[in-house]
Amino acid sequence: MRLAVLGVGLIGGSIGQAAKRGLGAEVVGWDRDQGTLAQALELGALDRAAESVADAVAGVDAVFCAAPVNALPALVGEALAASGPETVVTDVGSTKRELVEAVRAMPASARFVGGHPLAGAETAGVGSSRPDLFEDARWYLTPTDRSEGVLLDRLHGLVSDFGARPQAIDAAEHDLAMAKISHLPHVIANVLVSRAAAGDDADRRLEVGRSFRDTTRVAGANPAIWADIFAGNGEAIAREIEEIVEELRDAADLIARGDRERIASWQATAAQARRELLEAELAAGPLHELRVAVPNRPGIVAEVALALSRDGVNIEDMSLFPAADGRSGAISLWVGGEQGAERAAETVRGLGHRVSIVPPGG
Amino acid sequence: MRLAVLGVGLIGGSIGQAAKRGLGAEVVGWDRDQGTLAQALELGALDRAAESVADAVAGVDAVFCAAPVNALPALVGEALAASGPETVVTDVGSTKRELVEAVRAMPASARFVGGHPLAGAETAGVGSSRPDLFEDARWYLTPTDRSEGVLLDRLHGLVSDFGARPQAIDAAEHDLAMAKISHLPHVIANVLVSRAAAGDDADRRLEVGRSFRDTTRVAGANPAIWADIFAGNGEAIAREIEEIVEELRDAADLIARGDRERIASWQATAAQARRELLEAELAAGPLHELRVAVPNRPGIVAEVALALSRDGVNIEDMSLFPAADGRSGAISLWVGGEQGAERAAETVRGLGHRVSIVPPGG
Repeated sequence: MRLAVLGVGLIGGSIGQAAKRGLGAEVVGWDRDQGTLAQALELGALDRAAESVADAVAGVDAVFCAAPVNALPALVGEALAASGPETVVTDVGSTKRELVEAVRAMPASARFVGGHPLAGAETAGVGSSRPDLFEDARWYLTPTDRSEGVLLDRLHGLVSDFGARPQAIDAAEHDLAMAKISHLPHVIANVLVSRAAAGDDADRRLEVGRSFRDTTRVAGANPAIWADIFAGNGEAIAREIEEIVEELRDAADLIARGDRERIASWQATAAQARRELLEAELAAGPLHELRVAVPNRPGIVAEVALALSRDGVNIEDMSLFPAADGRSGAISLWVGGEQGAERAAETVRGLGHRVSIVPPGG
Repeated sequence: MRLAVLGVGLIGGSIGQAAKRGLGAEVVGWDRDQGTLAQALELGALDRAAESVADAVAGVDAVFCAAPVNALPALVGEALAASGPETVVTDVGSTKRELVEAVRAMPASARFVGGHPLAGAETAGVGSSRPDLFEDARWYLTPTDRSEGVLLDRLHGLVSDFGARPQAIDAAEHDLAMAKISHLPHVIANVLVSRAAAGDDADRRLEVGRSFRDTTRVAGANPAIWADIFAGNGEAIAREIEEIVEELRDAADLIARGDRERIASWQATAAQARRELLEAELAAGPLHELRVAVPNRPGIVAEVALALSRDGVNIEDMSLFPAADGRSGAISLWVGGEQGAERAAETVRGLGHRVSIVPPGG
């Protein structure tokens, strides 16, 4: 198996490493930036650095285009034009509809299948690439009615060999779902932060709590990358914003009416919905929250996490509840399954901390 | 100094412990639930369990009402009526305007000063109470133009002695700010979850990423408590929702127009605003993000956190970036100050992990 990777940042470099170490494939790489290319070679992500796109894709079985979203149509076009009639060309962009439409107009579009691995969306660069980046990660593939079955099948297998879990999905449906699950949370984080910062000086003096920290953590994520994502999925995101605006107005009505019972029921429904969404992807069972009250001293998070890991308990998610000075005063840990939660609570109690388990219904 | 605590859950119990251990005060407690009262006594949160509100408040210098928000007007009224002319009465409710207005109509309202400590908003119960719960926590006090200066001064000192940082604020202003900083994030988390769950089966199969996890972490928080908070601050929350709807529509326009430069600039502004909001309360300097790529094995979070704590580096905030199976594949850590971030990166590299520092402007 011979692969070409066009663009060897975090994702491209990790594809190279996964293909070489996991699959024993020969990997040829190309990048606009010679320094990045040299670093990728040095890290063992590539067998050979190509001098051009045409040089890279000559005679390979598959081409992975791992450039920024707005550079993809041109790059995919170049790869399709330069590669042979048996080569599948794919990409790893976060939005798919625009690209898939652009490629439809190209001569060899039957050899293109769009892709989007849910891993390492950050811009950490090739220095952070690793062979197991895609381990157990969902990898969406967006074939069209023109895609050649044998090439889709090959790509599906390759992605599985990288350790990922491929799933075919319509490009437009993918973008709508991403708008809901990923892009909208980013928009909302920005808007929340903007509102909080818009206050006068008295507001500025107010402390932000855990809910604000968590809800706005992705605010202002890498501007260059997110400008591409937002612009590339603008229609779906704008539609999602309209939907969320309707829901927010309903919520405002409900809250302003002050009917405690109906508000409590709305709140309980939200808790249930979030659990179901998160648990769909977990095998260990429903997530239980462990609330651990800890003294205000450094090292406490580590002690707890280490004790749990020694005990074989996997922490699925974690949230620190820092005191106003930023030192942690309490920790919430999410653990899969009732048994796991009880074992974890026992372990944490053994360290001398107070723990309460909040079951999925609690 | 002699204090009464009416309602001895997490907050009331912690007030008792802080007052006894930190201040050497005598603490009398009362609770509707006899089991809770007995447990508070047993934990050393109280010196004596009172048989009634009147019994508890007789001859004390200060009364802390720590009942659920909707029980507070009646409880504060009872405490004011039963306590002596030198006793300050306060509460710890999350919303203040309604209560302060209700108390204004009462005969002894000059002896009431509303309060709201930003600590332990969870419902963990008296079993989780501890003397240092308020250490370095902001504690809002909402006096009115009628409040007796000497009593406000006493309460201010008491709260400081618990280790908290008191701040006087107008009750309505407090509620508006809380709507913005705390209540709105909860509403939005609910609405996001509701939209994501509303999709058809194809959507349901989609994986949720870190942005969704973080943004919706507070969705469906304790329904009974949050029904009270939402209902008690309904007007301010509804107004905030209208403001956020306007901002969301502006964002939709901006995104739909697809002007990458303007979107990137909006994104950068959000990043800057969030940093400023969070750093206002930190002494160590601007928050730097450390992105650590880690192998997919349990115990890794603990190892990293423990090594940093040994090195004297304080983790201000943390976010796991789990692979689809829920095991962590990468960790983001926030550390105060450039020096702290560099020391931390050095330490983490020493463990054999790849680290990149994202400076405040990055």
